[in-house]
This record gives sequence, structure tokens and C-alpha cells, in this order.
Amino acid sequence: MTHHELPVFFLSMAIVLFSARSLGELARRFNQPAVLGELLAGIVLGPTVLGALAPDLQAALFPRDGALPIAFQAITTLAIALFLLVAGLDVDLSSVFRQGRSSLVISFFGIVVPFLFGFLSAWLLPRTLGAEPDSDRLVFALFVGTALSISALPVIAKTLLDLDMYRSDLGMVVISVAVIDDLVGWILFAVILGMMGGGANGAFSVPMTITLTLVFTLLMLTLGRWIIHRILPHVQAYTSWPGGILGFAVVGGLLCAAFTEWIGIHAIFGAFLFGVALGDSRHLREKTRHTLENFVSFIFAPIFFGTIGLRVNFAAHFDAPLVAWVLVIACTGKMVGCSWAGRMAGLSWRESLAVSVGMNARGGMGIILALLALEAGLIRERMFVALVVMSLFTSVIAGDLMQRLLKREKVTRFLDFLSPAGFVRRLEATDRRAAIEELSAVASKALGWKTDRIAQAVWMREQMVPTGIGEDVAIPHARLPGLPGPLVVVGLSRRGIDFDSPDGEPARLVFLILTPEGDNKTQLEILRDIGRAFHDPSVREAALHADSYVEFVAALKSAAR
Amino acid sequence: MTHHELPVFFLSMAIVLFSARSLGELARRFNQPAVLGELLAGIVLGPTVLGALAPDLQAALFPRDGALPIAFQAITTLAIALFLLVAGLDVDLSSVFRQGRSSLVISFFGIVVPFLFGFLSAWLLPRTLGAEPDSDRLVFALFVGTALSISALPVIAKTLLDLDMYRSDLGMVVISVAVIDDLVGWILFAVILGMMGGGANGAFSVPMTITLTLVFTLLMLTLGRWIIHRILPHVQAYTSWPGGILGFAVVGGLLCAAFTEWIGIHAIFGAFLFGVALGDSRHLREKTRHTLENFVSFIFAPIFFGTIGLRVNFAAHFDAPLVAWVLVIACTGKMVGCSWAGRMAGLSWRESLAVSVGMNARGGMGIILALLALEAGLIRERMFVALVVMSLFTSVIAGDLMQRLLKREKVTRFLDFLSPAGFVRRLEATDRRAAIEELSAVASKALGWKTDRIAQAVWMREQMVPTGIGEDVAIPHARLPGLPGPLVVVGLSRRGIDFDSPDGEPARLVFLILTPEGDNKTQLEILRDIGRAFHDPSVREAALHADSYVEFVAALKSAAR
Repeated sequence: MTHHELPVFFLSMAIVLFSARSLGELARRFNQPAVLGELLAGIVLGPTVLGALAPDLQAALFPRDGALPIAFQAITTLAIALFLLVAGLDVDLSSVFRQGRSSLVISFFGIVVPFLFGFLSAWLLPRTLGAEPDSDRLVFALFVGTALSISALPVIAKTLLDLDMYRSDLGMVVISVAVIDDLVGWILFAVILGMMGGGANGAFSVPMTITLTLVFTLLMLTLGRWIIHRILPHVQAYTSWPGGILGFAVVGGLLCAAFTEWIGIHAIFGAFLFGVALGDSRHLREKTRHTLENFVSFIFAPIFFGTIGLRVNFAAHFDAPLVAWVLVIACTGKMVGCSWAGRMAGLSWRESLAVSVGMNARGGMGIILALLALEAGLIRERMFVALVVMSLFTSVIAGDLMQRLLKREKVTRFLDFLSPAGFVRRLEATDRRAAIEELSAVASKALGWKTDRIAQAVWMREQMVPTGIGEDVAIPHARLPGLPGPLVVVGLSRRGIDFDSPDGEPARLVFLILTPEGDNKTQLEILRDIGRAFHDPSVREAALHADSYVEFVAALKSAAR
Repeated sequence: MTHHELPVFFLSMAIVLFSARSLGELARRFNQPAVLGELLAGIVLGPTVLGALAPDLQAALFPRDGALPIAFQAITTLAIALFLLVAGLDVDLSSVFRQGRSSLVISFFGIVVPFLFGFLSAWLLPRTLGAEPDSDRLVFALFVGTALSISALPVIAKTLLDLDMYRSDLGMVVISVAVIDDLVGWILFAVILGMMGGGANGAFSVPMTITLTLVFTLLMLTLGRWIIHRILPHVQAYTSWPGGILGFAVVGGLLCAAFTEWIGIHAIFGAFLFGVALGDSRHLREKTRHTLENFVSFIFAPIFFGTIGLRVNFAAHFDAPLVAWVLVIACTGKMVGCSWAGRMAGLSWRESLAVSVGMNARGGMGIILALLALEAGLIRERMFVALVVMSLFTSVIAGDLMQRLLKREKVTRFLDFLSPAGFVRRLEATDRRAAIEELSAVASKALGWKTDRIAQAVWMREQMVPTGIGEDVAIPHARLPGLPGPLVVVGLSRRGIDFDSPDGEPARLVFLILTPEGDNKTQLEILRDIGRAFHDPSVREAALHADSYVEFVAALKSAAR
């Protein structure tokens, strides 16, 4: 890179990362997967939007010749290999085996049915499904089948966490099914790449590439897994912590990536399989997992997904009938397969449908698969755009539909009812009654009520049983007739106020919780959420030192051990 | 990158990272800075060794044309920018201000004296100090002065930690001095780069570049610091954790890097200053710091330092007289300046010398500076090699010399006296006496002694005051005449054995500690180390589940929260 190119290199990377992270955050705000926002960032910065509005600026930031495209490719190539390594870590094979029959049944039909739907449609109507005149009909049909049969583990995991169902029985089934679908989907895709193949140097014949792929997969999932499990304690015992294990993970991922790239399938397949083998060892610490995951999901993944939109003009290659076809076949195949299998496995209709909606989400995995197919020349831009739109659309509808089908409600968070005006930095009160008066005055201001109307109700309740719950926290509360909705006010007291806690300590975090008279549930949920949020002493310490509402919220999110 | 190049890309990266990490670990084993090993890895893989032994293999792994050199440059460019961002995080300006006069005095003379030594030698004897005939005498002399006046904060910090002096008064002074030297050294170097300069597009005149550099530095350390401190709570409160803050750090670092590269000084200066400004905010959580540091120090830094040796033939460009000159001037300047100033600031002679030996270490910072000077055409290979050797040599001698001068001893670790043979996976004993017998039998086997000789002494001691210390741990011990050296044996008991602990709980980790009769100190140090190591319940839990000595050691290192 020349001295002209280096500033552009840093600037473009900063812009991509910033845009992808920001739109990713926005997507999360609306309960959508971050990948939706990250992909949109690239579309905005790429030929589709910026290229149409300000072609010169776009070309200056993301030039198409010179050293910069190669530099960018190097970063994104590394990024996606690490992303798949981390995705592999999440594939918990042991827990799949523990789930047993029902997940196996659902995942089997959840792959076979959409695969057949995709394969047959593409075989019978290749042109309608975006095959180019020169593509191999069999390979193309196999690819479409595979592209429609994978699932997006991260999107599904996030949805289950939002619904507080991750550890439920149904949640475990869904995760196991997604794990198997992910794994089988990638193996199928690797075989397809092999079929087009010939290896990096054209050194391998197609059958050889496929044989090597299958042997490598089998070895990594058995012997490789066993060896890694044996080596890990040695790495952790005899090298610096956590440098040894981080280096081991990345080196292993890169080596496997080099191998799979060399035999003629894509590098990320090797990185993914190494991740699966590594993630399965109980010697791998949660902390190591988190260090890798945090850096990769929040730095490398946004850079990778943020650059996809730079390559393709999504407007010019948007082929509405094709998009519609792909969407219909993708959703029908997956949902028919999964919900039917769910019923067979003994789930209720609602549960089966919910599982099928979850499995239907293709998220980042669908996008990566489409991109690799585009790079390999298996598909062209219009089919790529159709697959990306399908992946995003199926992910966007998944969370909301699952929630409705299962009639679950989002977990109540007390923060949703606390506004900046409801934060009292320093309580002046030194006793319970005065503290309740002080916080009630704040609440009444927000409501436009008289202070007494609130303070009296809360004080009456307080006199029945004191509301100090220990661990620095007190939660005076009342249910009030005519209250439009739940309201939380918090006051910090450095000295502490005696709320007659069971641990005998004064309360330094006093929450006034007001809920409408008829609503019994919300109050309990808010109480539970507060207790949970402030159980960790380091959170309480950080929260007590907050000088503003924003610092208080920041402490809550960031201070937990 | 083509399909031929991609496998090589992954393979070379894996080889560089593996070699750099492995030799880095080896260096640490000998109490040397990791950068020594990382640099050696590159020398082995580069033209110096592998290129001489197997030139074809070397050229195949690290080709000099095509897309691969650019791809490698992209990764290392990003790596070094992130490395300097993290180095900046460690620069704690607030604590420097708190240290006050003595650090200011020492750092002032610790920069000025070696700078003058270097500047004058290079000005008077430019050819002897490796100036090329065509180089600008003033710029060259300024560079030599700067290169000799910087210090390596990470090496110094590591040495102080090893000597358990990081939090001592003297340790704090040393760190503050190193911080100031680092900062001033980089600003000086940026100005020198500016003097050669003209900006990325030749758009800036030399005075303009220098003005911009100084204004940017000043702004980042004042206004920038203040703004970042204000923004951080908002980032943490309103974005996902820890994605928001990680993205913020990297985007900020990249933007500043782009700016400094654009005005004609190096990108890493901008990343470094952003790190300084960010690291100074008390809103930045330790966890965020660790995530960045772990990934950068153990993945990016080894890749960066591991590739330096690929560029230069260290054997061909090794100029012994030049190396000797650089070493002598570097050591004299820094040590005269620092030790003299140390005396003035009221330190004892020994302390002053120890500080000067510590400051004399140039470590990774000296190497980076030399590399940038080489890339900028300020120096040629032979001076580069001399500066690298000087940086490494000064770092290698620092730790040992400081230890001798301060008559400090390394912290005693009980692990040094525990061997695989001294690990009992399952104690069969169910009471104190039997447990002591069982562990004594293991110890006596290692020593070739009779069991009774040990067991009786330990049991006599045990009867005086029981050795259960609570938190699952018991530490039966004895001092034995004729014992060649300290010996530790550990036994795990799932059920627990009553050692009459103050917390009333049985001991599940029983350590038998034997020390020679005359040695009163070691026993206490081992006891203290065990108490500290197992204070964290998650460490105890992981240690109790260890199935082997290796897993036990791995648990100790990796399980702490």
C-alpha cells in the first residue's frame, strides 16, 4: 500500500465498522438480528446507494483497483474465517446427543424436506430459480437445496434468549436441531464446492476432493475432537494465560482453513470444523470463549457483513419474481418439514409451528453461503440478492412469530419504566419515611399528581412489612388506582437508610415502584428483575457511584463480573 | 488473492502466529520479554535462517510478489495500529500527575540526557552511527536521539510485576517515568516523520505537518480526553454490551490512525493517542481493557513482531561495530540521565540505578520505531538491525539487573515445589491422621525416605494447632532436618476431611508442605501463596474436578474470575 492508500485503508475500515455497528445496534433496538443492520450498512456505502448518489466519493473510499481491494480482501477473509471458528464453538455436539430422538427427527426432516423442495424446484425450473444458462443443472439444484435447508444458529439462540426460553426443554430441542442443520448444511455445501472443484492447484480430482472433505470432517469430529480435548489442559497449564489458549484456537482455525482451501473447498469450512471440535471440550473456559466471541462478533463480523454490500448493487440486481419464488420455496419447505416432524416428535401444533418458524431463519449463515456461491461462480448477482433477501426476511419474522405462537411475553425489565427524570443522584433523606416522601415527590412530578397521593399509599404498604431486601437494596412500592402504567424511581444514598433489611444493613439503592391497581404481575416481575440485576456486588458498587442516569444505566450493563 | 494464494495466506499466517507464540512462550519461561521470542520467530522464518537453508520453501511460504505481500501488509498494518491503541490504554496520565515531582524530574533527564547523547554522537559521527551518505544530517541526528530516549512500558511493567513491586512507591515512580518517556518519545518521533514529510498527498508543507501533529496531540490529550470521558457512559448505556464500547475503541483508533497517516506522520501515532485518551477515563471498564488487550497482545502483536524478521536479513546486515556503538551510547545516555536524576529526586543509589536499568529497556517500542524509520527511508537495514539488537539486549538485561540491584527475590510459588508425582487425584483417607499418612507416603516415595519420618513430624505439628484454614483448604506441614529443598504434595477429597477449619467446613484440598529445617521463610511464603491462589471459589471448584496434575495446574491458571 502506498502513502496515498494507507489513510484510505484506515478511513474506509473505520467507516465500514462504524456504520455496520451503528445500524447493527439500531436493528437490535427493534429486536432484529444485528446482521440485518450490518448488511444494510454495506448496501448504503456500496454501489446501491452511495455509488448512485456520489459515485466519485464512493470510488475514492472503496477503490476497485490498486492495493486496497486486496488489503480489504485480506481483512475480510481473515474476519470470516474467525467468524466461522467462533460459530463452530457454539455448536455443542454433546448436548445434541443428550437431547436424543426428538431433535434428531426434527432436524432430519427439517433438512430433507426443504432440501427436496429446493432441489426439485431448481431441477424442474432452473431458469425460474435464477440458474444461468451455462451452469451445471445438477450442481445448481444441489446448491439451491442446500441453501434452503440450513438454519441460522445465532439468530435462533438470540430469539430464545429474548423469550427467556433458552434453557427450557423446547429451547434445547430447537438449539439442537439448529446445530445439526448447521453442521449438515455446511458439509453438503463443502461437497458441492468440491464437485465444482479441482483443489487449489487443480491438483485434486472431484471425487478426491469430496473424499478428502468427508474424511477430514469425520476425523475432526472424532479423533480431532479427542486430541484437542487431551491437549487443552497442557496448553493451559504450560503456557501463559490466556495467551496460550487464544493462540492455540486461532492457529488451529487457520491451519484447518488452509487445509480445506487447499483441497478445493472453502477455508471457512475448516475453521468452522476446528471450532466445533474445540468448543466441545469441557476444558475450554467460558472466559476464552467470551474473549474470542466478543472480539469476533463485534469487530470482525461487522466488518465482514458490512463489506458484502460493497460488492453488489442490490437495486440493479433485485429480481422481484425470483425473490418471491425463493422466499416461497424456502419458507414452505422448511416449515412443512419442521412442523410435520415436530408433530411426529410429540410436540403440540403451536410448538411445532414455533420450531419451524425458528428454523426458517437463515440469518448470517444463509448470507455467507450465498456469498461463497457467488464467488465460486455457482450463482450470479440476481440469485445472490434473492438469497440474501430471503435470509434476512426469514430472520426478521422469526422472533415475532415465535413469540406469538408460544404466547410468551418478553421478560419485564425495570429499566423500561425508569426515565432520566426518575433518577435521584443523592437522596437527602436519612430515614425511611423521608426517603419515600422524596421519591414520591419525583414520581408525582412526572405524573402531574399530588405527592401525598403516592407517598401515603407507599408508606401504608411500608408499615405492613418493611421493604429492605438486603444487599443494599430497598423496594418501597404500591399499586395505585388510575396510574397509566408502571413507574420506577430510584434514589442513591451514600450513607444508607435503614429499611429494616434482613441482613441488618442500611439500603443505599432505594427503588420506588408504582404499578396500576389491577396489574399484579408487573410489580412482581419488576421486583424480581431488580433483585437479579443488583445481586452482583460489583454492579451495586458501580451503580452507587453513578453521577447521572446515563452512568447508572451504563453501570448496570457493564459492571457485572 | 487467487485460489493458489488463499491456502498460502492461511498457512503462512498460522505458521507465523504459531512460531511467534511458541518462541514467545519460551522467552517468558526464561523470564524474558515475549517480544524477544516473537522477533526470533520471524528471523528463523525469514531470509536470515529459512531463506538461507531452504530458499524455495521460504519463497513459497512468503512470496515477494503477487497479492500475498499486500494481504500480509494489510494484516500487519491493522495489527500494529491496534497494538499501539492498546499500548496507549496503559498510559495512565492521571496517575502520572499524582506521582508528582520525582517522576517528572527523572523522566525529564531520562529523556534529555540520552537524547543529547544520541543527537550529539549522530551529529558529530554520522557515518559511525550508520547514517547513509544521502541522509539529512539534522533529521538523522534527531532520530537517533529520539530512538535512544524512549522506554518500553510493557517490559518495565512486566519486570515490576515479577518482582512484586508494581504497586510499591518505587514501582509507581518507574511506571510514571516510563509513561512520560513513551509519550514524549512518540511525539518527538512524529515531529521527525513530519520533518521528512509532506503528508499523504504531499498536500502539506513540513511546518504545516508539524503544526498539525502538535495541535492534534494537544487536542487529544485535553479536549479529546474530556469528550471521550463524556461519551463513554452513553455508549455503554445505550448500545449492546460489550459490542458498543469495543466498536467505539476500534473505530476511534482507526479514525485517528487515518488522520495522522493523512497529515504525513504514521498511523500508529493516532491510534496510540486515541488509546491514551480512552484509557484515561474511569468509565472504561477493566473487562473491556482485558478483551482488547488479550486479543491484541496474544494474536495481533505476535503476528506483527513475527513478520518483522521476514523483511530483513539480520545476518547479512549485522554490522558489529555499529551494534556496539549504538549499544554503548544507548546504555550510557539512559543510565547516566536516569540514575543522576534519581539521586536528585531523593532515591538511594541502588534505587536510582535500578530505575535507570529499567528505563534502559526499549523492548517492542524501540523495534517499532526502528521499523517505521526503515520504512520511511530514514535509516537502512544495518542501522535497523543495530537498533533492534539494542532494544532486545537492553530488555533482556533489565529484569535480572533490577532484581539484583534491589535485592528483591522472585515471589515464591507453591507450584514450583509441586511435581506430577505429588498430585493425589482421590484421597482415600476420611480423617486427618489418615490423610497425613497418605500424603506423607507420596512425599517419602519422592524423597526415598521412610513414610514415618515425615508423617510423625507433620502429625505432631497438626496436633498443636489444626491446619484447616477454611475455604476448602487444609495445609498440614512440617520442617524437616536433612530435607534437600521444599516439597509440596496435594490431595483432593470429594467428600472432604475434617481439619477443624475456622469455618467449620471439611477440607477438600489438602496440601502437605515440607520445608528444610533452617528455612523459616519459604514455608510462610508457600502458605501465603496457597491461600491466595485458592481464595476464588471458581478456582477451587475447577481444581477439585481436575483428573490429573496437568488439569490441576490448568485450573489454577485459567479458572479465576
